[in-house]
Amino acid sequence: MKLTVYLAGEIHSSWREEIKDLVKARALPIEFVGPMENHDLSDRIGEEILGTQPNPILRDDAASSINNLRTQVLMNKSDLVIALFGKEYKQWNTAMDASAAVSLGKPLILVRPKELHHPLKELSRKANVTVESVEQVIEVLSYIFSEK
Amino acid sequence: MKLTVYLAGEIHSSWREEIKDLVKARALPIEFVGPMENHDLSDRIGEEILGTQPNPILRDDAASSINNLRTQVLMNKSDLVIALFGKEYKQWNTAMDASAAVSLGKPLILVRPKELHHPLKELSRKANVTVESVEQVIEVLSYIFSEK
Amino acid sequence: MKLTVYLAGEIHSSWREEIKDLVKARALPIEFVGPMENHDLSDRIGEEILGTQPNPILRDDAASSINNLRTQVLMNKSDLVIALFGKEYKQWNTAMDASAAVSLGKPLILVRPKELHHPLKELSRKANVTVESVEQVIEVLSYIFSEK
Amino acid sequence: MKLTVYLAGEIHSSWREEIKDLVKARALPIEFVGPMENHDLSDRIGEEILGTQPNPILRDDAASSINNLRTQVLMNKSDLVIALFGKEYKQWNTAMDASAAVSLGKPLILVRPKELHHPLKELSRKANVTVESVEQVIEVLSYIFSEK
Amino acid sequence: MKLTVYLAGEIHSSWREEIKDLVKARALPIEFVGPMENHDLSDRIGEEILGTQPNPILRDDAASSINNLRTQVLMNKSDLVIALFGKEYKQWNTAMDASAAVSLGKPLILVRPKELHHPLKELSRKANVTVESVEQVIEVLSYIFSEK
Amino acid sequence: MKLTVYLAGEIHSSWREEIKDLVKARALPIEFVGPMENHDLSDRIGEEILGTQPNPILRDDAASSINNLRTQVLMNKSDLVIALFGKEYKQWNTAMDASAAVSLGKPLILVRPKELHHPLKELSRKANVTVESVEQVIEVLSYIFSEK
Amino acid sequence: MKLTVYLAGEIHSSWREEIKDLVKARALPIEFVGPMENHDLSDRIGEEILGTQPNPILRDDAASSINNLRTQVLMNKSDLVIALFGKEYKQWNTAMDASAAVSLGKPLILVRPKELHHPLKELSRKANVTVESVEQVIEVLSYIFSEK
Amino acid sequence: MKLTVYLAGEIHSSWREEIKDLVKARALPIEFVGPMENHDLSDRIGEEILGTQPNPILRDDAASSINNLRTQVLMNKSDLVIALFGKEYKQWNTAMDASAAVSLGKPLILVRPKELHHPLKELSRKANVTVESVEQVIEVLSYIFSEK
Repeated sequence: MKLTVYLAGEIHSSWREEIKDLVKARALPIEFVGPMENHDLSDRIGEEILGTQPNPILRDDAASSINNLRTQVLMNKSDLVIALFGKEYKQWNTAMDASAAVSLGKPLILVRPKELHHPLKELSRKANVTVESVEQVIEVLSYIFSEK
Repeated sequence: MKLTVYLAGEIHSSWREEIKDLVKARALPIEFVGPMENHDLSDRIGEEILGTQPNPILRDDAASSINNLRTQVLMNKSDLVIALFGKEYKQWNTAMDASAAVSLGKPLILVRPKELHHPLKELSRKANVTVESVEQVIEVLSYIFSEK
Repeated sequence: MKLTVYLAGEIHSSWREEIKDLVKARALPIEFVGPMENHDLSDRIGEEILGTQPNPILRDDAASSINNLRTQVLMNKSDLVIALFGKEYKQWNTAMDASAAVSLGKPLILVRPKELHHPLKELSRKANVTVESVEQVIEVLSYIFSEK
Repeated sequence: MKLTVYLAGEIHSSWREEIKDLVKARALPIEFVGPMENHDLSDRIGEEILGTQPNPILRDDAASSINNLRTQVLMNKSDLVIALFGKEYKQWNTAMDASAAVSLGKPLILVRPKELHHPLKELSRKANVTVESVEQVIEVLSYIFSEK
Repeated sequence: MKLTVYLAGEIHSSWREEIKDLVKARALPIEFVGPMENHDLSDRIGEEILGTQPNPILRDDAASSINNLRTQVLMNKSDLVIALFGKEYKQWNTAMDASAAVSLGKPLILVRPKELHHPLKELSRKANVTVESVEQVIEVLSYIFSEK
Repeated sequence: MKLTVYLAGEIHSSWREEIKDLVKARALPIEFVGPMENHDLSDRIGEEILGTQPNPILRDDAASSINNLRTQVLMNKSDLVIALFGKEYKQWNTAMDASAAVSLGKPLILVRPKELHHPLKELSRKANVTVESVEQVIEVLSYIFSEK
Repeated sequence: MKLTVYLAGEIHSSWREEIKDLVKARALPIEFVGPMENHDLSDRIGEEILGTQPNPILRDDAASSINNLRTQVLMNKSDLVIALFGKEYKQWNTAMDASAAVSLGKPLILVRPKELHHPLKELSRKANVTVESVEQVIEVLSYIFSEK
Repeated sequence: MKLTVYLAGEIHSSWREEIKDLVKARALPIEFVGPMENHDLSDRIGEEILGTQPNPILRDDAASSINNLRTQVLMNKSDLVIALFGKEYKQWNTAMDASAAVSLGKPLILVRPKELHHPLKELSRKANVTVESVEQVIEVLSYIFSEK
């Protein structure tokens, strides 16, 4: 049994690397996928492929069309989704991805600092589990594979 | 043909009343549903029904479980979802509802001020239409019912 | 907006009548459906329609085939499922109906005495809301219909 | 053709080991998955990962959220579900898992002592096959793979 | 609560009229739909609408395309399917309709003379209930609507 | 039994009026829905609601986002889809709508002049019935409602 | 690309062996699955595993429950279903399997002697392709894998 | 992570070879599938397998039944669909395949010369991304696999 896990959420910190390292240290059979982590490239990918756009909104539309394609391809392949919310940014695309995961029947782990609980309370109730740290994520992932 | 429309999004302004009044003025055959608009009640409904909770996070959990139930019942009955984002607040539950609508095959109209486009760019691409004002919403709703 | 609600669970007490009376008193637009409440008829309906069966297990199979048909027809028509667990009996069919509701995308309210929480903990996490009394059910139902 | 089989049900006896041993003896290409079999860990996993909870009900909620996540991940990967009911315990989570399997279009084998038939009669009619022993389970599994 | 019931199966006897009369006598709120009962018209409807076909197989194809359209429209609207097998004819389209109903999540009542049980055994296990007579069908339909 | 029928396809001829008149003459209980038939408005609706766009492609994008919303709302409400292809125009949106109908489990009638059969051959095989004239459509619709 | 193909239909002739041999000769990457081909075992498997049954109908029920389980497991794993009808027997289970395949979105090839077309006309229209011989099946399978 | 990509659209140019070569050059882990590219064979495959047909329309029906089977088998196996429209031909089957992909939850990339945008505007809005060249397709595919 091997799992594919989609890591949704902010691309400004190194939380994905931490998870990958910890999973590797425990030798759990997990393949990770996720969004483009190069924020700059993620914002300009639309114009890079489709050419210069007439204004910033259309520049954003072009980029998000390609980012959404990527997310849909990779989330369809995943067995589990982990969505992390940080203290900054609007992160509406993370909420969107987390909700899409639940609607697709894919289990969801929510990661957020405790002080963000109030605005995330509805999403937290839709998630299977809500935790506060990357270490807790690893504990949950390990638990799926341990039998006794 | 009569439509049921779910109005997702902020409950701090009077945008729902504006939409209902304008739709009434045009005599469009639409029934509107949506979240509890009394913000205070929405936050305390958990403790009101389930009793005092041990801490604020659990108070939130109790409230959101009942708010999510309400949303699920009413969105299941809807033919169309309109999600409005304002300039304040995190509004992650609005993003969650909008994404759930798309996943359920329900058409989605996104309403947001232009300056919020960047953080909403992925959700905007998933929506059928993105507009900036309540008046534009009415134009879209009218268009569905006009034939010539 | 009118809702159809399936009342799953024990048929030995009068909880359905209590809910119907309270809903009527509040004039909520809800139609209730549920299992055959005549326990004796529910157990012998198989032999009554299909004739005497060779042994008690087959007598049960005959009855449950017709009871399952009834449940499937009526639950398919429902917008919301309420499942009540009492202190006696195995009630595995109630757990089965509650789980089917969740899988069909129908919101679920669980009703159980507090002391039954431990064996119901997994089902409680799958439900939208877990309450302890019929009065709390009515509060939740009222909340769905109130706007302010 | 290799199958993945989820073994739902009581974790107090050694029935899973018996099935695995018998399947190994017959060299059937089956991978088994299932719930955490360490009952104590299963009950305390919530507090172990999420920290001490304010009361026993919330301790249970925390544990069941993680157990449900595990079940959902592993059942999604399965081709067949086997649910065993023993003579003790409420086992409502087993009924919940068995019903979820049927709703997901996954074939279901029910295992129960004959004297439990009456309370399980509705679930038994939803299952593909109902048997009484682990040996009968093996016979059914072998039959899937034999051609003549 | 009003139900729509699709009556699949042979169109050579008057079983549909019998069911409709008995349901009317009991004043059950059921609307019945089903295939074209004029056998001759059912066979020639293809050529009647699409013109003369080059050979009998294409004549059949033309007719069945229109009969399948009719069945799909009406079965989609139905809450319950009743499929009757008689002693004559191949009736493969009845088996096809019955199986489609199960796959669509629509409850199924199978009606057949006892001596046809062996060739119908797999379909009988997929049906919710198998009976032998129109009177038994009425008993099952009545049971859905009676509460005590 | 009342049906809702979506009329997909060209908006340059009066075929929808012909169908509606003929259905009215036969008093069939059918409600028709379909795309905006005012071609000019259909093309400029994007700019009319969303404002002037930077170039013709974006003008088209704006219009089609609103036209797709309308189609999705109305097709979701429909029991049957009729798609008509004429001799002119690319009509790729008609092919798109027809294919979406099939994927949604909605029966499809294709209308096209015989000389268009070759490029429509794959879509014709996916449709339930392919006819050449509005009169044939009426014959099929009548057949759904006639019983003998 | 490797395909799994379910071979539904009569188990009295050697058509499955013919297909397997021809596919092997062409080295097509196909794995075949299907029902138990030992007719006698298929009929008595219920009593063999579940013990002697009270009468022939219950003997059949026991056998078909296990045969249906096998079919559901293997068809769920398949990419394509081939259903063969011969000149003898009722073969209602073959029609049931073919219809289930279509409902599950699995492509269907129907094989039947030309003289059986009339009673199979509705099923033939639901199938993707209808052929008369095992050789034609092989041609279709080869066509899926050839590119030029 | 390995992806399977279906290449829908015209079979008169060498665009599939160009994509395959460029993907190979970048060593992306993608397997490509698609329609029969031998146009002549694609048109005559019906008569080749099913024998001479009475007229050109039936010759087309026979061919398209087999081509649709092929498409359904291969598209079901795919993670992503790319649909290319050229300047010639009706290409309604390409629009059909593209729309089916969207309905099945499979991401869609549309490729078309800019001058075809107007007739493709509705389909373009349903696609995840619309591009003009094979090189842009490769950029999008590469982006899915690059992480930084």
